[in-house]
Amino acid sequence: MSDHFVTHVTFTIRRTTPASPAQVFAAFADPRVKLQWQSSPDTLAVDDAEGYLEFDFRVGGHERFGFSMPNGPTFSYDAEYFDIVLDQRIVYRYTMHADGKPDSISLVTIEFVQTAAGTTLTYTEQGAFLDGIDDPALREEGTTDLLDNLVRYLSSYTPTSSS
Amino acid sequence: MSDHFVTHVTFTIRRTTPASPAQVFAAFADPRVKLQWQSSPDTLAVDDAEGYLEFDFRVGGHERFGFSMPNGPTFSYDAEYFDIVLDQRIVYRYTMHADGKPDSISLVTIEFVQTAAGTTLTYTEQGAFLDGIDDPALREEGTTDLLDNLVRYLSSYTPTSSS
Repeated sequence: MSDHFVTHVTFTIRRTTPASPAQVFAAFADPRVKLQWQSSPDTLAVDDAEGYLEFDFRVGGHERFGFSMPNGPTFSYDAEYFDIVLDQRIVYRYTMHADGKPDSISLVTIEFVQTAAGTTLTYTEQGAFLDGIDDPALREEGTTDLLDNLVRYLSSYTPTSSS
Repeated sequence: MSDHFVTHVTFTIRRTTPASPAQVFAAFADPRVKLQWQSSPDTLAVDDAEGYLEFDFRVGGHERFGFSMPNGPTFSYDAEYFDIVLDQRIVYRYTMHADGKPDSISLVTIEFVQTAAGTTLTYTEQGAFLDGIDDPALREEGTTDLLDNLVRYLSSYTPTSSS
Protein backbone atom coordinates (compact mmCIF):
# COMPACT_ATOMS: atom_id res chain seq x y z
CA MET A 1 0.00 0.00 0.00
CA SER A 2 2.87 2.32 0.80
CA ASP A 3 6.59 2.41 0.18
CA HIS A 4 7.02 3.93 3.63
CA PHE A 5 8.34 1.69 6.34
CA VAL A 6 10.67 1.98 9.31
CA THR A 7 13.18 -0.54 10.60
CA HIS A 8 14.10 -0.23 14.29
CA VAL A 9 17.39 -1.65 15.47
CA THR A 10 19.60 -1.59 18.54
CA PHE A 11 23.21 -2.69 18.50
CA THR A 12 26.00 -2.56 21.05
CA ILE A 13 29.74 -2.61 20.39
CA ARG A 14 32.20 -3.05 23.27
CA ARG A 15 35.94 -2.54 22.99
CA THR A 16 38.81 -2.34 25.45
CA THR A 17 41.89 -0.17 25.12
CA PRO A 18 44.92 0.50 27.31
CA ALA A 19 44.23 4.23 27.07
CA SER A 20 42.74 6.02 30.07
CA PRO A 21 39.07 7.09 30.11
CA ALA A 22 40.24 10.70 29.69
CA GLN A 23 42.18 9.78 26.55
CA VAL A 24 39.29 7.84 25.07
CA PHE A 25 36.86 10.62 25.94
CA ALA A 26 39.16 13.17 24.27
CA ALA A 27 39.09 11.08 21.09
CA PHE A 28 35.41 12.04 20.81
CA ALA A 29 35.53 15.52 22.30
CA ASP A 30 38.46 17.02 20.38
CA PRO A 31 37.87 17.42 16.63
CA ARG A 32 41.58 17.19 15.81
CA VAL A 33 41.85 13.86 17.62
CA LYS A 34 38.53 12.60 16.30
CA LEU A 35 39.56 13.19 12.70
CA GLN A 36 42.58 10.95 13.23
CA TRP A 37 40.41 7.86 13.51
CA GLN A 38 36.99 8.93 12.21
CA SER A 39 37.99 10.11 8.78
CA SER A 40 38.32 7.81 5.82
CA PRO A 41 39.98 8.97 2.62
CA ASP A 42 37.41 6.93 0.71
CA THR A 43 34.35 8.57 2.10
CA LEU A 44 34.85 11.76 4.08
CA ALA A 45 34.63 14.93 2.09
CA VAL A 46 36.64 17.49 3.98
CA ASP A 47 34.30 20.41 4.40
CA ASP A 48 36.71 22.80 6.03
CA ALA A 49 40.16 22.84 7.58
CA GLU A 50 39.07 20.50 10.34
CA GLY A 51 36.89 18.28 8.18
CA TYR A 52 33.71 19.33 9.94
CA LEU A 53 31.00 21.77 8.97
CA GLU A 54 30.38 22.20 12.69
CA PHE A 55 31.94 20.71 15.81
CA ASP A 56 30.41 22.09 18.97
CA PHE A 57 31.00 19.55 21.70
CA ARG A 58 28.64 20.65 24.46
CA VAL A 59 25.09 19.84 25.50
CA GLY A 60 22.82 21.20 22.76
CA GLY A 61 25.74 21.63 20.36
CA HIS A 62 25.97 19.98 16.95
CA GLU A 63 28.52 18.03 14.97
CA ARG A 64 27.95 18.11 11.23
CA PHE A 65 29.78 16.83 8.20
CA GLY A 66 29.07 15.55 4.73
CA PHE A 67 30.50 12.64 2.80
CA SER A 68 29.80 10.58 -0.26
CA MET A 69 30.38 7.02 -1.32
CA PRO A 70 31.82 6.13 -4.73
CA ASN A 71 28.86 6.12 -7.15
CA GLY A 72 26.56 6.55 -4.16
CA PRO A 73 24.52 9.30 -2.59
CA THR A 74 25.87 12.24 -0.65
CA PHE A 75 25.21 11.83 3.06
CA SER A 76 24.73 14.60 5.60
CA TYR A 77 25.43 13.79 9.23
CA ASP A 78 24.05 15.98 12.03
CA ALA A 79 24.53 15.09 15.69
CA GLU A 80 23.14 16.98 18.68
CA TYR A 81 24.58 16.29 22.11
CA PHE A 82 22.07 15.56 24.86
CA ASP A 83 24.28 14.63 27.81
CA ILE A 84 28.01 14.79 28.48
CA VAL A 85 29.70 13.51 31.66
CA LEU A 86 33.42 14.25 31.51
CA ASP A 87 35.49 11.09 30.88
CA GLN A 88 32.43 8.90 31.55
CA ARG A 89 29.58 9.30 29.09
CA ILE A 90 28.38 10.96 25.89
CA VAL A 91 24.74 10.74 24.74
CA TYR A 92 23.58 12.24 21.45
CA ARG A 93 21.15 11.80 18.63
CA TYR A 94 22.26 11.92 15.05
CA THR A 95 20.39 12.12 11.81
CA MET A 96 21.47 11.07 8.35
CA HIS A 97 20.11 12.42 5.09
CA ALA A 98 20.95 10.80 1.74
CA ASP A 99 20.84 13.29 -1.14
CA GLY A 100 18.65 15.45 1.08
CA LYS A 101 16.14 12.70 1.93
CA PRO A 102 15.67 11.66 5.57
CA ASP A 103 17.52 8.37 5.91
CA SER A 104 17.75 7.55 9.60
CA ILE A 105 17.76 8.93 13.12
CA SER A 106 19.72 7.31 15.92
CA LEU A 107 20.40 7.66 19.62
CA VAL A 108 23.96 6.91 20.65
CA THR A 109 25.22 6.27 24.17
CA ILE A 110 28.98 5.95 24.63
CA GLU A 111 30.13 4.86 28.09
CA PHE A 112 33.72 4.80 29.31
CA VAL A 113 34.58 2.61 32.29
CA GLN A 114 38.03 2.45 33.82
CA THR A 115 39.40 -1.04 34.34
CA ALA A 116 42.73 -2.47 35.51
CA ALA A 117 43.65 -2.87 31.83
CA GLY A 118 42.64 0.66 30.77
CA THR A 119 39.18 1.51 29.54
CA THR A 120 36.16 -0.41 28.36
CA LEU A 121 34.13 1.57 25.85
CA THR A 122 30.52 0.58 25.26
CA TYR A 123 28.78 2.07 22.23
CA THR A 124 25.01 1.58 21.98
CA GLU A 125 23.04 2.78 18.97
CA GLN A 126 19.25 2.75 18.76
CA GLY A 127 18.20 3.61 15.24
CA ALA A 128 15.11 4.14 13.13
CA PHE A 129 15.85 3.56 9.44
CA LEU A 130 13.39 4.97 6.94
CA ASP A 131 12.11 3.36 3.76
CA GLY A 132 15.07 1.05 3.18
CA ILE A 133 17.34 3.91 2.08
CA ASP A 134 20.13 2.74 4.37
CA ASP A 135 20.99 -0.75 5.62
CA PRO A 136 21.17 -1.15 9.43
CA ALA A 137 23.59 -4.07 9.03
CA LEU A 138 25.97 -1.86 7.06
CA ARG A 139 25.62 0.87 9.68
CA GLU A 140 26.66 -1.56 12.40
CA GLU A 141 29.52 -2.82 10.24
CA GLY A 142 30.76 0.70 9.46
CA THR A 143 30.52 1.72 13.11
CA THR A 144 32.45 -1.38 14.16
CA ASP A 145 35.18 -0.47 11.65
CA LEU A 146 35.35 3.07 13.05
CA LEU A 147 35.66 1.87 16.63
CA ASP A 148 38.37 -0.58 15.56
CA ASN A 149 40.13 2.42 13.97
CA LEU A 150 39.83 4.16 17.33
CA VAL A 151 41.27 1.19 19.23
CA ARG A 152 44.20 1.07 16.80
CA TYR A 153 44.73 4.81 17.13
CA LEU A 154 44.70 4.64 20.92
CA SER A 155 47.05 1.66 21.05
CA SER A 156 49.75 3.68 19.30
CA TYR A 157 48.87 6.71 21.37
CA THR A 158 49.65 5.14 24.74
CA PRO A 159 52.99 3.43 25.25
CA THR A 160 51.82 1.06 28.01
CA SER A 161 49.43 -1.74 27.23
CA SER A 162 48.16 -4.61 29.30
CA SER A 163 45.07 -5.64 27.32
CA MET B 1 32.45 3.35 40.86
CA SER B 2 29.92 5.73 39.33
CA ASP B 3 26.28 6.55 39.83
CA HIS B 4 26.01 7.06 36.08
CA PHE B 5 24.26 4.39 34.08
CA VAL B 6 21.95 4.22 31.09
CA THR B 7 19.02 1.89 30.52
CA HIS B 8 18.08 1.29 26.88
CA VAL B 9 14.57 0.16 26.08
CA THR B 10 12.32 -0.29 23.07
CA PHE B 11 8.58 -0.72 23.33
CA THR B 12 5.78 -0.86 20.79
CA ILE B 13 2.11 -0.09 21.35
CA ARG B 14 -0.46 -0.89 18.67
CA ARG B 15 -4.05 0.28 18.68
CA THR B 16 -6.91 0.25 16.19
CA THR B 17 -9.54 2.91 15.81
CA PRO B 18 -12.47 3.40 13.45
CA ALA B 19 -11.17 6.88 12.60
CA SER B 20 -9.48 7.46 9.27
CA PRO B 21 -5.69 7.84 9.01
CA ALA B 22 -6.23 11.56 8.34
CA GLN B 23 -8.21 11.92 11.57
CA VAL B 24 -5.65 10.03 13.62
CA PHE B 25 -2.81 11.99 12.05
CA ALA B 26 -4.60 15.26 12.87
CA ALA B 27 -4.82 14.19 16.51
CA PHE B 28 -1.02 14.55 16.59
CA ALA B 29 -0.60 17.45 14.17
CA ASP B 30 -3.21 19.89 15.51
CA PRO B 31 -2.46 21.21 19.00
CA ARG B 32 -6.12 21.87 19.75
CA VAL B 33 -7.00 18.25 18.97
CA LYS B 34 -3.91 16.88 20.67
CA LEU B 35 -4.74 18.65 23.93
CA GLN B 36 -8.12 16.88 23.98
CA TRP B 37 -6.50 13.52 24.64
CA GLN B 38 -2.92 14.33 25.68
CA SER B 39 -3.62 16.60 28.59
CA SER B 40 -4.26 15.35 32.07
CA PRO B 41 -5.64 17.65 34.76
CA ASP B 42 -3.39 15.86 37.25
CA THR B 43 -0.13 16.46 35.52
CA LEU B 44 -0.16 19.00 32.71
CA ALA B 45 0.65 22.51 33.75
CA VAL B 46 -0.95 24.73 31.14
CA ASP B 47 1.85 26.95 29.96
CA ASP B 48 -0.15 29.16 27.61
CA ALA B 49 -3.56 29.36 26.04
CA GLU B 50 -2.99 26.14 24.09
CA GLY B 51 -1.16 24.31 26.87
CA TYR B 52 2.12 24.25 24.96
CA LEU B 53 5.22 26.37 25.26
CA GLU B 54 5.81 25.63 21.59
CA PHE B 55 3.97 23.60 18.99
CA ASP B 56 5.62 23.73 15.60
CA PHE B 57 4.53 20.65 13.70
CA ARG B 58 6.99 20.50 10.81
CA VAL B 59 10.33 18.85 10.12
CA GLY B 60 12.86 20.52 12.42
CA GLY B 61 10.11 22.10 14.51
CA HIS B 62 9.69 21.57 18.24
CA GLU B 63 6.89 20.74 20.64
CA ARG B 64 7.56 21.78 24.20
CA PHE B 65 5.63 21.74 27.43
CA GLY B 66 6.20 21.39 31.14
CA PHE B 67 4.34 19.46 33.78
CA SER B 68 4.76 18.27 37.31
CA MET B 69 3.60 15.32 39.34
CA PRO B 70 2.13 15.70 42.83
CA ASN B 71 5.11 15.88 45.24
CA GLY B 72 7.38 15.03 42.30
CA PRO B 73 9.81 16.83 40.05
CA THR B 74 8.91 19.28 37.32
CA PHE B 75 9.41 17.73 33.90
CA SER B 76 10.30 19.54 30.69
CA TYR B 77 9.38 17.84 27.42
CA ASP B 78 11.05 18.89 24.15
CA ALA B 79 10.33 17.08 20.89
CA GLU B 80 11.93 17.78 17.51
CA TYR B 81 10.33 16.38 14.38
CA PHE B 82 12.61 14.48 12.02
CA ASP B 83 10.20 13.13 9.42
CA ILE B 84 6.54 13.72 8.65
CA VAL B 85 4.58 11.89 5.93
CA LEU B 86 1.05 13.25 5.76
CA ASP B 87 -1.50 10.80 7.22
CA GLN B 88 1.11 8.02 7.29
CA ARG B 89 4.05 8.62 9.60
CA ILE B 90 5.60 10.90 12.22
CA VAL B 91 9.17 10.43 13.46
CA TYR B 92 10.66 12.58 16.20
CA ARG B 93 13.04 12.57 19.11
CA TYR B 94 12.04 13.90 22.46
CA THR B 95 14.00 14.70 25.56
CA MET B 96 12.85 14.89 29.16
CA HIS B 97 14.48 16.86 31.93
CA ALA B 98 13.48 16.42 35.59
CA ASP B 99 14.05 19.58 37.62
CA GLY B 100 16.53 20.61 34.93
CA LYS B 101 18.53 17.36 34.96
CA PRO B 102 18.74 15.25 31.79
CA ASP B 103 16.35 12.37 32.35
CA SER B 104 15.91 10.57 29.04
CA ILE B 105 16.03 10.88 25.28
CA SER B 106 13.76 8.87 23.01
CA LEU B 107 13.05 8.25 19.35
CA VAL B 108 9.40 7.85 18.49
CA THR B 109 7.95 6.45 15.28
CA ILE B 110 4.18 6.64 14.84
CA GLU B 111 2.79 4.82 11.82
CA PHE B 112 -0.80 5.01 10.57
CA VAL B 113 -2.07 2.23 8.33
CA GLN B 114 -5.53 2.23 6.82
CA THR B 115 -7.48 -0.97 7.28
CA ALA B 116 -11.02 -2.09 6.48
CA ALA B 117 -11.92 -1.27 10.09
CA GLY B 118 -10.32 2.18 10.13
CA THR B 119 -6.72 2.75 11.15
CA THR B 120 -4.04 0.78 12.91
CA LEU B 121 -1.66 3.03 14.82
CA THR B 122 1.76 1.65 15.75
CA TYR B 123 3.80 3.63 18.25
CA THR B 124 7.44 2.60 18.73
CA GLU B 125 9.65 4.27 21.30
CA GLN B 126 13.38 3.67 21.61
CA GLY B 127 14.66 5.32 24.76
CA ALA B 128 17.85 5.90 26.71
CA PHE B 129 17.10 6.54 30.39
CA LEU B 130 19.83 8.17 32.45
CA ASP B 131 20.89 7.34 35.99
CA GLY B 132 17.60 5.83 37.13
CA ILE B 133 15.86 9.21 37.31
CA ASP B 134 12.87 7.92 35.37
CA ASP B 135 11.42 4.43 35.15
CA PRO B 136 11.07 2.99 31.62
CA ALA B 137 8.20 0.75 32.78
CA LEU B 138 6.27 3.81 33.99
CA ARG B 139 7.02 5.56 30.69
CA GLU B 140 5.51 2.67 28.76
CA GLU B 141 2.54 2.57 31.12
CA GLY B 142 1.93 6.32 30.82
CA THR B 143 2.25 6.20 27.04
CA THR B 144 -0.20 3.31 26.89
CA ASP B 145 -2.67 5.33 28.97
CA LEU B 146 -2.27 8.30 26.61
CA LEU B 147 -2.89 6.20 23.51
CA ASP B 148 -5.93 4.65 25.17
CA ASN B 149 -7.13 8.22 25.79
CA LEU B 150 -6.61 8.84 22.08
CA VAL B 151 -8.58 5.75 21.07
CA ARG B 152 -11.44 6.82 23.35
CA TYR B 153 -11.34 10.34 21.97
CA LEU B 154 -11.42 9.10 18.38
CA SER B 155 -14.22 6.62 19.04
CA SER B 156 -16.51 9.47 20.10
CA TYR B 157 -15.20 11.63 17.24
CA THR B 158 -16.30 9.33 14.42
CA PRO B 159 -19.88 8.16 14.32
CA THR B 160 -19.23 4.98 12.33
CA SER B 161 -17.33 2.09 13.83
CA SER B 162 -16.63 -1.38 12.64
CA SER B 163 -13.77 -2.40 14.90
